[in-house]
Amino acid sequence: MKDNDCIFCKIVNGECPSYKIFENEYTLAFLDISKDTFGHTLVIPKKHFENVFECDDFYLQEVIKTTKLVANHYKNLGFKAVNILNASGKEAGQSVFHLHFHILPKMDATDFDAWPKFKNDAEDLESQWNKLKM
Amino acid sequence: MKDNDCIFCKIVNGECPSYKIFENEYTLAFLDISKDTFGHTLVIPKKHFENVFECDDFYLQEVIKTTKLVANHYKNLGFKAVNILNASGKEAGQSVFHLHFHILPKMDATDFDAWPKFKNDAEDLESQWNKLKM
Repeated sequence: MKDNDCIFCKIVNGECPSYKIFENEYTLAFLDISKDTFGHTLVIPKKHFENVFECDDFYLQEVIKTTKLVANHYKNLGFKAVNILNASGKEAGQSVFHLHFHILPKMDATDFDAWPKFKNDAEDLESQWNKLKM
Repeated sequence: MKDNDCIFCKIVNGECPSYKIFENEYTLAFLDISKDTFGHTLVIPKKHFENVFECDDFYLQEVIKTTKLVANHYKNLGFKAVNILNASGKEAGQSVFHLHFHILPKMDATDFDAWPKFKNDAEDLESQWNKLKM
């Protein structure tokens, strides 16, 4: 249930402080310490899961419900839009290995650009599809 | 249930073609036509919702379950990690106004950088918290 070396588990358990925005039985939303943007918020399950790949469906669904709830709260406060981001796996930039969804609320379109910079060199879709379909 | 002018509704209804990766009763996953990256996939609810703000909890939870399922499928195919992104609202970069989560699978850390470029000038956390807490 708890990873003793996990900073987010320590936040859940009150061993580390955080600026909590919302909390219920299964999830917690708190301000990211980076101060990257005004309102940068993390939503986590209270149970330890490394990332999306291994999170059980129940907790994952609770996390996305809380993400929506906080997003709507921010909209009610005057933000116009949100980006929601997750990194699962270190190759995707994950640095804390307790599942978290970032909420990046935006007051206007020029706050920041949340879209990745691509090489734009992917192969044609039919070739991709033949390799990837389930 | 269906928005007649929505390209994603047309994909759901078979009026427009797509390279489908996975489909169930409530959700559809298909390749993004951008060819930005190998495996760039969109996951959508089959019912029309503009974005996260207005999507009902049931469909939102089905979408995130399908996102996890496709992410694990890609991991099984050899991808090491995924980024999951959503833009809700035009100020966040949303361009098709039918809720969609992007899955950007990564073969290695150097494929692309999915992290936004920030101004890094947000106010202190306590000040943010006093404005944002629920």
